[in-house]
Amino acid sequence: MSKKIFLNESEMPSHWYNIVADMPNKPLPPLHPGTKQPAGPQDLAPLFPMELIMQEVSTEQYIEIPDQVQEIYKIWRPTPLIRATAFEKMLGTDCKIYYKYEGVSPSGSHKPNTAVPQAYYNMKEGVKKIATETGAGQWGTALSFACAQFGIECDVYMVRVSYDQKPYRKILMNTFGANVYASPSNRTQAGRNILAADPNSTGSLGIAISEAVEIAAGDENIKYSLGSVLNHVLLHQTVIGQEAEKQLEYAGDFPDIVIAPLGGGSNFAGISFPFIKHNLVNGKKVRCIAVEPASCPKLTKGKFMYDFGDTAGYTPLLPMYTLGHTFQPAAIHAGGLRYHGASVLCSQLLKDGLIEAVALQQLECFDAGVKFAKAEGIVAAPEATHGIAQVIREVNQAKEEGVSKTILFNLCGHGFVDMQAYADYFDGKLQNHEFTHDELTSALDKIGDLQPV
Amino acid sequence: MSKKIFLNESEMPSHWYNIVADMPNKPLPPLHPGTKQPAGPQDLAPLFPMELIMQEVSTEQYIEIPDQVQEIYKIWRPTPLIRATAFEKMLGTDCKIYYKYEGVSPSGSHKPNTAVPQAYYNMKEGVKKIATETGAGQWGTALSFACAQFGIECDVYMVRVSYDQKPYRKILMNTFGANVYASPSNRTQAGRNILAADPNSTGSLGIAISEAVEIAAGDENIKYSLGSVLNHVLLHQTVIGQEAEKQLEYAGDFPDIVIAPLGGGSNFAGISFPFIKHNLVNGKKVRCIAVEPASCPKLTKGKFMYDFGDTAGYTPLLPMYTLGHTFQPAAIHAGGLRYHGASVLCSQLLKDGLIEAVALQQLECFDAGVKFAKAEGIVAAPEATHGIAQVIREVNQAKEEGVSKTILFNLCGHGFVDMQAYADYFDGKLQNHEFTHDELTSALDKIGDLQPV
Repeated sequence: MSKKIFLNESEMPSHWYNIVADMPNKPLPPLHPGTKQPAGPQDLAPLFPMELIMQEVSTEQYIEIPDQVQEIYKIWRPTPLIRATAFEKMLGTDCKIYYKYEGVSPSGSHKPNTAVPQAYYNMKEGVKKIATETGAGQWGTALSFACAQFGIECDVYMVRVSYDQKPYRKILMNTFGANVYASPSNRTQAGRNILAADPNSTGSLGIAISEAVEIAAGDENIKYSLGSVLNHVLLHQTVIGQEAEKQLEYAGDFPDIVIAPLGGGSNFAGISFPFIKHNLVNGKKVRCIAVEPASCPKLTKGKFMYDFGDTAGYTPLLPMYTLGHTFQPAAIHAGGLRYHGASVLCSQLLKDGLIEAVALQQLECFDAGVKFAKAEGIVAAPEATHGIAQVIREVNQAKEEGVSKTILFNLCGHGFVDMQAYADYFDGKLQNHEFTHDELTSALDKIGDLQPV
Repeated sequence: MSKKIFLNESEMPSHWYNIVADMPNKPLPPLHPGTKQPAGPQDLAPLFPMELIMQEVSTEQYIEIPDQVQEIYKIWRPTPLIRATAFEKMLGTDCKIYYKYEGVSPSGSHKPNTAVPQAYYNMKEGVKKIATETGAGQWGTALSFACAQFGIECDVYMVRVSYDQKPYRKILMNTFGANVYASPSNRTQAGRNILAADPNSTGSLGIAISEAVEIAAGDENIKYSLGSVLNHVLLHQTVIGQEAEKQLEYAGDFPDIVIAPLGGGSNFAGISFPFIKHNLVNGKKVRCIAVEPASCPKLTKGKFMYDFGDTAGYTPLLPMYTLGHTFQPAAIHAGGLRYHGASVLCSQLLKDGLIEAVALQQLECFDAGVKFAKAEGIVAAPEATHGIAQVIREVNQAKEEGVSKTILFNLCGHGFVDMQAYADYFDGKLQNHEFTHDELTSALDKIGDLQPV
């Protein structure tokens, strides 16, 4: 039996899968941040090229992937699907465990899947510069690479605490040619306001988004780009699940359970949406489980309501499970999961009972990550360990029930640039975080006047 | 046309290729460090399991790869062969450039190709613990992973300067379960001697080898393991070139030029030996070029003579191109290339005019690495940039001559854990190093009494 299942480049998906077409309840429209009325394509035009906006509101089931994007995808796609034989043996399970490995990409995660088409559509519209934010650094690296491919200048606002603690990420972005600024910066009003109140602010993803949006909104030659949350971002990631489906077919398998961590939702959407389609269209019953950190539990403890995507309130309001846009999650190491809200599509699917969600503590996740590394040889990014931990839970559950399941999870990235997290774990510096009622209400109270769904 | 050429797992090489069988002049035997007489298998038995010793002295053309090793190879092998289409376009060349990408392995380089069989043969002999050294950290990471696969304890002596400057590498080894000690340490006489003379010694690979060898020689339950230089290490790496040959066959191609960086020689041997076989056996004329750093130019400026592998003089004497075992190379960032000697096999091949060697400056190499990253999306390890720089030289040469060449190079590892090198390059902190006559003679003078060839 093959451990790794590869596809030929000729078997790569030709289209992105748009789940909106098949959802029983369509996602509610975004609201204009000023008027609080439904925002149309023109409202988004200062920030995004029109082709991405049309993807954002599209109800077509499939959208064709341009040839030039496909050519660049081929640098690392199709990614391998790997049977976790050694991990199965270590766990002593009859379950079959497969993982899709996105760590082979230029930035080491799934993020280039959307960075490349986003840069492409900007290039087609003649955009010369893109501004974006990055937290842990994965997204900024991916967009830097994508912009280098099309000769577009790239400005990355990097959350100050990551900028200081993760210098390798900054250097990676510089290597691909991007300019990297610590956020909050003095380059924007949003940044200056924060710094005036707290000159030592370590920043947040919400603040960095405000800065990048402000830069793009104020200059018609600059556009903005987001690495998760939005419909078109999730759309681009569906190459993951489509490939995995074909690869499992070659293995003669189909998953009972699909698992992925959820920060904004693009990683989870990427692997799960093509399988949720089977549930919606073909009467299958694949359990799709989004795993969030216990310290930032928007899916399991947040409210479903309209909220901003950023701290300053510049972005359109989105209908989503949220902890409030001013929520400051505890400083856990899985930086990519520390976002206050979940994407509109994932939120609607959860509300409709079409996906599941669980919140896990970080010690359990790192323990799972170390086990997995020793067995399978891949040191997962801290975000990705959340998926591995849930796999172990499902395996234990199956053992209790005396059944064998086929489990697929998305190993969205490697941890080579995040090793400090493992060091802190080994040194006993990491704690679990018990999320309190006060934490929840204090941030949610601040969005009390926003129109609930 | 496919950008990446994959093999099925069923097409992986079943044997390692032993170039000794085809060499016109066989390598000279190692000498016992005490008696200076040819060392036999029994002399090596305190350090290595007997099956590896028999591989070290074997003259068989092919040696079978055990099933259990093959199973673990499948975690990352076969590795992709990639056509550098974007890099070709950037360089404006008619040459065809292919690279074999070994960065997909657990440690991010080619090193696990030999770490796994070495751990396997130790396990078969009932060894419970292996001691080794590591410089930049790639080898220590690879052996840590391999030992985890077989439940063997692993002690890594890591050169102090790397231990302090590259904490991520140490944590990676810890994650795979290894114990990591900064070298020189107080755990060995060799280490204590160095520390007595200089309590602030930052160490060297030669010192770290002395420490690991001392530990293994003094305890029958502990063996020693080396990540390059020795015949059996180079042997194991030939899976790289054998795969590449088959992949090029699928592409309908055969290389005019094969390029790889050379530190001890295992990376270069891995990709080139199966092609040198075509020269030796089938009358082909593939140019195989070893690239070394200008600051550690053993192949282009060293002497061919018997020398120790380590600083303290514990190891057998090997006939090789060397700068002298007390030579301290300048602190360049390509740590994996800072070794005073070249493997016996590579040295003999160079002496016989069967391979070529060039020495490159580090600024040219980093410049090549940045260009390559922007085009192909892979940030190469500093060591690997030496190969890329030589590719550019060959491309320019071909342009001058008005010819088109097919060039294959081994991209032996990614740079995710070595990004500080790129930062120093961008910050203008790196210099070229003009190797002086004094540097050469001062270290060589110290081995003047050793039997020359």
